[in-house]
Amino acid sequence: MKLYSPCIGGNFTPTEKTFEVKSPYNQRVIAQCSLALSEELEEAILAAQRIEEEMAGMPSYQRQNILNGIANGMERERENLAKILCLEAGKPMKYSLGEVDRAIQTFRVAAEECKRIPAEVISLDWTPAGEGKEGIVKHFPVGIVAGISPFNFPLNLSVHKIAPAIAAGCPIILKPARSTPLSALELARIAYENGLPEGALSVLPMDRTSGNQLVTDERFALLSFTGSPQVGWDMKNQAGKKRVVLELGGNAGVIVTQSSNIELAVNKCVVGAFAYSGQVCIHTQRIYVHEKVFEEFLEKFAAKTRQLKVGDPLEKETDISSMIDETNAIRVEGWVQDAVADGAKIYLGGKREGNYFPPTILTNTKPDMNVCAMEVFGPVVTVEPFTDYNEAIKMVNNSEYGLQAGVFTNQIDEQNLAFQKLKVGGVIINDIPTFRVDHMPYGGIKNSGIGREGVKYAMLDMLEPKLLVRNM
Amino acid sequence: MKLYSPCIGGNFTPTEKTFEVKSPYNQRVIAQCSLALSEELEEAILAAQRIEEEMAGMPSYQRQNILNGIANGMERERENLAKILCLEAGKPMKYSLGEVDRAIQTFRVAAEECKRIPAEVISLDWTPAGEGKEGIVKHFPVGIVAGISPFNFPLNLSVHKIAPAIAAGCPIILKPARSTPLSALELARIAYENGLPEGALSVLPMDRTSGNQLVTDERFALLSFTGSPQVGWDMKNQAGKKRVVLELGGNAGVIVTQSSNIELAVNKCVVGAFAYSGQVCIHTQRIYVHEKVFEEFLEKFAAKTRQLKVGDPLEKETDISSMIDETNAIRVEGWVQDAVADGAKIYLGGKREGNYFPPTILTNTKPDMNVCAMEVFGPVVTVEPFTDYNEAIKMVNNSEYGLQAGVFTNQIDEQNLAFQKLKVGGVIINDIPTFRVDHMPYGGIKNSGIGREGVKYAMLDMLEPKLLVRNM
Amino acid sequence: MKLYSPCIGGNFTPTEKTFEVKSPYNQRVIAQCSLALSEELEEAILAAQRIEEEMAGMPSYQRQNILNGIANGMERERENLAKILCLEAGKPMKYSLGEVDRAIQTFRVAAEECKRIPAEVISLDWTPAGEGKEGIVKHFPVGIVAGISPFNFPLNLSVHKIAPAIAAGCPIILKPARSTPLSALELARIAYENGLPEGALSVLPMDRTSGNQLVTDERFALLSFTGSPQVGWDMKNQAGKKRVVLELGGNAGVIVTQSSNIELAVNKCVVGAFAYSGQVCIHTQRIYVHEKVFEEFLEKFAAKTRQLKVGDPLEKETDISSMIDETNAIRVEGWVQDAVADGAKIYLGGKREGNYFPPTILTNTKPDMNVCAMEVFGPVVTVEPFTDYNEAIKMVNNSEYGLQAGVFTNQIDEQNLAFQKLKVGGVIINDIPTFRVDHMPYGGIKNSGIGREGVKYAMLDMLEPKLLVRNM
Amino acid sequence: MKLYSPCIGGNFTPTEKTFEVKSPYNQRVIAQCSLALSEELEEAILAAQRIEEEMAGMPSYQRQNILNGIANGMERERENLAKILCLEAGKPMKYSLGEVDRAIQTFRVAAEECKRIPAEVISLDWTPAGEGKEGIVKHFPVGIVAGISPFNFPLNLSVHKIAPAIAAGCPIILKPARSTPLSALELARIAYENGLPEGALSVLPMDRTSGNQLVTDERFALLSFTGSPQVGWDMKNQAGKKRVVLELGGNAGVIVTQSSNIELAVNKCVVGAFAYSGQVCIHTQRIYVHEKVFEEFLEKFAAKTRQLKVGDPLEKETDISSMIDETNAIRVEGWVQDAVADGAKIYLGGKREGNYFPPTILTNTKPDMNVCAMEVFGPVVTVEPFTDYNEAIKMVNNSEYGLQAGVFTNQIDEQNLAFQKLKVGGVIINDIPTFRVDHMPYGGIKNSGIGREGVKYAMLDMLEPKLLVRNM
Repeated sequence: MKLYSPCIGGNFTPTEKTFEVKSPYNQRVIAQCSLALSEELEEAILAAQRIEEEMAGMPSYQRQNILNGIANGMERERENLAKILCLEAGKPMKYSLGEVDRAIQTFRVAAEECKRIPAEVISLDWTPAGEGKEGIVKHFPVGIVAGISPFNFPLNLSVHKIAPAIAAGCPIILKPARSTPLSALELARIAYENGLPEGALSVLPMDRTSGNQLVTDERFALLSFTGSPQVGWDMKNQAGKKRVVLELGGNAGVIVTQSSNIELAVNKCVVGAFAYSGQVCIHTQRIYVHEKVFEEFLEKFAAKTRQLKVGDPLEKETDISSMIDETNAIRVEGWVQDAVADGAKIYLGGKREGNYFPPTILTNTKPDMNVCAMEVFGPVVTVEPFTDYNEAIKMVNNSEYGLQAGVFTNQIDEQNLAFQKLKVGGVIINDIPTFRVDHMPYGGIKNSGIGREGVKYAMLDMLEPKLLVRNM
Repeated sequence: MKLYSPCIGGNFTPTEKTFEVKSPYNQRVIAQCSLALSEELEEAILAAQRIEEEMAGMPSYQRQNILNGIANGMERERENLAKILCLEAGKPMKYSLGEVDRAIQTFRVAAEECKRIPAEVISLDWTPAGEGKEGIVKHFPVGIVAGISPFNFPLNLSVHKIAPAIAAGCPIILKPARSTPLSALELARIAYENGLPEGALSVLPMDRTSGNQLVTDERFALLSFTGSPQVGWDMKNQAGKKRVVLELGGNAGVIVTQSSNIELAVNKCVVGAFAYSGQVCIHTQRIYVHEKVFEEFLEKFAAKTRQLKVGDPLEKETDISSMIDETNAIRVEGWVQDAVADGAKIYLGGKREGNYFPPTILTNTKPDMNVCAMEVFGPVVTVEPFTDYNEAIKMVNNSEYGLQAGVFTNQIDEQNLAFQKLKVGGVIINDIPTFRVDHMPYGGIKNSGIGREGVKYAMLDMLEPKLLVRNM
Repeated sequence: MKLYSPCIGGNFTPTEKTFEVKSPYNQRVIAQCSLALSEELEEAILAAQRIEEEMAGMPSYQRQNILNGIANGMERERENLAKILCLEAGKPMKYSLGEVDRAIQTFRVAAEECKRIPAEVISLDWTPAGEGKEGIVKHFPVGIVAGISPFNFPLNLSVHKIAPAIAAGCPIILKPARSTPLSALELARIAYENGLPEGALSVLPMDRTSGNQLVTDERFALLSFTGSPQVGWDMKNQAGKKRVVLELGGNAGVIVTQSSNIELAVNKCVVGAFAYSGQVCIHTQRIYVHEKVFEEFLEKFAAKTRQLKVGDPLEKETDISSMIDETNAIRVEGWVQDAVADGAKIYLGGKREGNYFPPTILTNTKPDMNVCAMEVFGPVVTVEPFTDYNEAIKMVNNSEYGLQAGVFTNQIDEQNLAFQKLKVGGVIINDIPTFRVDHMPYGGIKNSGIGREGVKYAMLDMLEPKLLVRNM
Repeated sequence: MKLYSPCIGGNFTPTEKTFEVKSPYNQRVIAQCSLALSEELEEAILAAQRIEEEMAGMPSYQRQNILNGIANGMERERENLAKILCLEAGKPMKYSLGEVDRAIQTFRVAAEECKRIPAEVISLDWTPAGEGKEGIVKHFPVGIVAGISPFNFPLNLSVHKIAPAIAAGCPIILKPARSTPLSALELARIAYENGLPEGALSVLPMDRTSGNQLVTDERFALLSFTGSPQVGWDMKNQAGKKRVVLELGGNAGVIVTQSSNIELAVNKCVVGAFAYSGQVCIHTQRIYVHEKVFEEFLEKFAAKTRQLKVGDPLEKETDISSMIDETNAIRVEGWVQDAVADGAKIYLGGKREGNYFPPTILTNTKPDMNVCAMEVFGPVVTVEPFTDYNEAIKMVNNSEYGLQAGVFTNQIDEQNLAFQKLKVGGVIINDIPTFRVDHMPYGGIKNSGIGREGVKYAMLDMLEPKLLVRNM
């Protein structure tokens, strides 16, 4: 049984306290992992401080070499990384491989962006006061970054904090989810094997109490958190002077109009609703279909969903497997039962087996049911008809969340209205709200968070503008 | 009878040779104008050289003050300028007023852009060779600009060269069209009354022979020509080392699809086809209508066209009046007759009276007829049905020109296809190809020209990038 | 005696509770002002909500018209506004006129920026997942803005929140400093007289208790605070989900090197140290002079300072007058006395008379004295010699603040080192840290704040990016 | 003896006519090469037309893969490419290896830039005419590119046309210099071995007569020429409607001031003056040294020059070898003799041996001597003292050329003056005018050319902006 140690600025040493990492699929222990405590965090901070100036002053070709070196290292271990990810998260191999590929791409993008940190020349002679002067704005690393990443994309959502930090020249200390720390620790190993200077990255599996120091310690210049809304918003008010970026969840909606390509919409929605059992921040949770095509959509959607292959995540054909733990499966089951009690109909699925919850389609739901109003974070989707497009927009907006939304349409006016009116961070035309490529700006409004990730956008929060006013 | 003198760097002195400026509407002489010859051009060039360094070094707030001052001066004389323009060009007052307003707006835009000349910071440490170095690119005035403007927008198309030149810090010598020199000369007066330094602008009515020195003289850094394709392209090969921008004409096409708003399309096309008797570079010359809505469109289009009020351009209600001269009216008549001889049908109009040519709608045309293939520069439009959208795109592209094109549609795929496939400088969705606002990039490809105008874009051709590599 | 009423979305109605506004110079009551309470704030919020959608959808030419209209209105009342400002703040007329001019310029800049809200096209086909898709990012108003502005620039620092809000399309509720509410209220009147729609702006003089709702109420999307560090940082942890921009103070340092122009440095430093009695966020508080030119600088600096004319702020020649109140004058006196007790020498000034504190130059100070380490916000400056340039950089950085810093030098390496090493928001070469033009990015790091103002930069915090992913 | 065939769109077939490629160092025949004639050019154009649409529509990840694939291929053959380059051009191995590395970097940069083709969103509602509309500008490939490259950087200057063309989506037909066609042909082979689609690149060694069709044929949308001024400027007036970019030569000057680091200046100038026998467009030809440091500079410069190792270019230690041919060596010798006859002094070198010309330092020159006024393109440099910095600027500017200039200084005012006043495309501070990294904008003004290269900048000339006006 392998024992994983925290990565303290490149130093992998076990601590006194260890815990077991188990497969969500069959509860087997897949590794031992050593827990980092306050002491290890302190060491990691000191290591970060020692390397801070060097990271800030590193020429861009060196940053690029390191970032590409890590990407190359991950490519060489692609299959193994995917397997570890699959084991710790219960994520089917096809999606685990996809996540590794995306994490590699995130590093590749960072390797380009580190050379393109924005700078601006500002003419100052707009009034006589500025005559003969000129401004230059350059961006400098803010300092040490605290990152907290969730269980559902244990590798790529860690990389979305680590790669921009290296590109921006900031040391980073990352706390992975306690249930899925392994792939992030493997990544740390690969990073140091490929030239990352000591101190630039620490990966510390921690319990929540010691982990809270990442939120409160004033030596961090930025807290970048991806996780649940409640936890995230609480952090903001404890964060002191540091910047805070919150990537939280939602209950993403999608609209399928009459002018849309129904086959396309069905195929995309099956993935958006059920991939990784819906344990995805931009999981497609609510589908609104024009009444004229509602029946057709619903039938085809259910038919396609029935074809999903359930099984061991390690099997290459598996589409869907267990949820992360039984607690969550029970929670989802409860929400579905509550909905049914309140009038909803189960069109497909609905019956839990242990920590497996099947792909579940609900209709006849009401907006205030938990399965609609809350983030379900499970393989449950509601499908409802609408008559008027404006009404559909309102239905999607009727949420405390606002991450992404999708609209299937071929009409210009509907596309424009969606972009103008949908209260979200991203409007995806002819695709699901679950769409994300790793260099696009990504993040939510309302309760879904504050700030944007997406390499370049994540880097901007890790950089501080400084103005030089000079003679010209 | 007023005698207009050339503006030689702010000095308005009559020359020995004068000519008459006549109303195209009734051939009355409206002013005498003094012709500039080689001597005056030489003086203008010397005056430009004397002010070149001062213009280049002028702080942006001073440039802005001058440009806004000119705009204010034009606003105060708005009605008078419009009347002069109306008289010299035979342009109906409603359009003349519109042109004055646009010329004012062009100066207002330039007053903003002069403070926003692009500059760029380039990180150079992408390889060890650039370590510790940084690049800054700033844009410096290229030198003296030669401008040649046409009769059809004698004010605003002059302003589209003058305002960017002042904003960029370049002295400019402009040759207006010989038939319509008055509004440009009035503008020059207003400019100097509002603070323009001596030498920064000359406006020289010239004959073509002396005018050709604007093309060949190596002391000009840029030739900016708006006019006919044949003349323009000939200039390019005589221009020596200077830069050349050519804004030439076209035979702009528009597509009206089934999903379009027919009323909107009709209303817009009437303006595009017949405003100022079609003597507009982006005159709507070819209309392709989906067969299912072809009859409806054609009837409504003709009905609306019949409502146009013909008359004296000085009357505020007049929509359409004479063409610029009888030669052109006869030419247009000939093209229409040739088309009819070759099988085309006149749906409306077609009969010339002196230098008035009525709004004319042709159908059953063939692509190689002059009225289709050449720039008609008159109030003639062809309307043809199409079956397949891709075919319509090809019909629009079947032209040696490529300035702008319009598409009326509410379909996303049609909009995208239009933007991808139409071989033009600008694709206008749900409006006519005749659409232009003065700060947008404007210019054609294929035989329609090279380069772009639109204040900021015109300025870029008047500026030379210079790189500073410095230590950082 | 004029009674000023709060501006509740354009409605100026007195409330039950009034207070007196007094001249800091002679304590005469210059106006009565009505205090806004929770009810008025509630009305203002409701008015803001009613206009929110209209403001967000307003075309840019209308925004520009409103913003330029306000600037024109202020120009017409320039003298009167300056006088009110002079009376309420005790700011000498020459500086009051300057502030009005700058406030006008801030509106002019906003009138341009409202047409230039950034948008971005992102190619998404960097991986097969994005093939055929394209991203467009546009920025939409975040919602209602809460602004809190300080006494020292009661007009222009209010305008730095109001003008960007109008430009960005956000309704704003501003709480001016209670001692100086008049000029902001006059501005509100002018704004509504010049076309601002009802609800878009409220100006509410409030006490701190009711004012705190601006910090905590979740209906505000952004809190923009300018004021003291302690107050500001406390707000950040009470602000809930809203964004927070803090423009706080500092103890700005300036370095005068051997290669500098001493006359220039002296003249600039006298203004930086003593203008408006140092009650300026970027007041020049600490001057470090190379030992070789230390004596020369100090003598000339003191000589020039002695020439400052003390007197009634309403007199046009007056350079320096009373501080805002006696409490502050006493505080400054105490800090100076403490410094002397600890070994500092008073080179000039130092003796308080009522709420007048004279221009005071200290030497032989230590970094931990209040006059060095804290924000003195009074007419006190320390002048110390240095031997080594790197040491001087460290001295400037030896502060918990980091707003701006100045360096007088003619050496490239010193300029570069300053920009690389000084821990501030802005490095000003050959000018004082007090340098600011209104469109430049302005704001501090460390305890000096978070975020940037400067119209375009302030607007960015009032705008939320939204991504459209579309087919192309 | 290897026979090289032209690359006709990926098809390498010998033609009837061959010529010998000889080593400039020892005149040995190193390869046979087949000459392309009009027929082959016609085939290449047809192949380019066939692939044009596919290249234009290729997603950016595919372009990136191809460009990185070529770079990888070159890396694998680095030594061999350098050797071929060394043999055909007589360029010492250390510089040949450097050129291969730079060519690889040029492809790497292009692999990034192909994903970053600029696009712009323009708000159009600046006036009521644009209300509800929005502009998007995207850049589309212009069509087929004609490239002509010179003998002195036969690989990297070809790559500076080929890599941007692939990145921009344009097929390209390149005519390498007839004396050095081999490395470009090897590159073509590598390109096709690594995924370039057939037709996208042709490399055709041609004589000047058939080659001139690249200039005149209207099927080319752009002519990009690097070579001598006379040839280049003649082409511009024969080019018809196509765009023209000319990268010509110069007689670059450098200023060494009193405040400069003399060691640095000496070391850099030795490279700038003598690397590849001065056969470099930005060869350091004229050095102006402040009189106070003139003697010191001259002595150290000569001493350092004497250490250069002369010999066989294939030897790794060789610094300098033969010129490209005896004709040029004789020409350079003549110019030096003319200068001496007119009063110049040879401080070092000056005696030709066959086609070897030694590093030669001249003093006491006059500005109108050929060695000053013309592009010497040989290992000859003039060193002259100056008294006043402004005078030195004028000396550098006293030239019909304006490519790059260098200034060694530590003074801010001198740096600023250099950037403001030097009439060149690039001002290099504390380095030689010979400085170039491959992604910086590079190109000259005056007789040195028109347009800029440097991947992104070269791409801009290969792209045509197209505006979409759409509803929003």
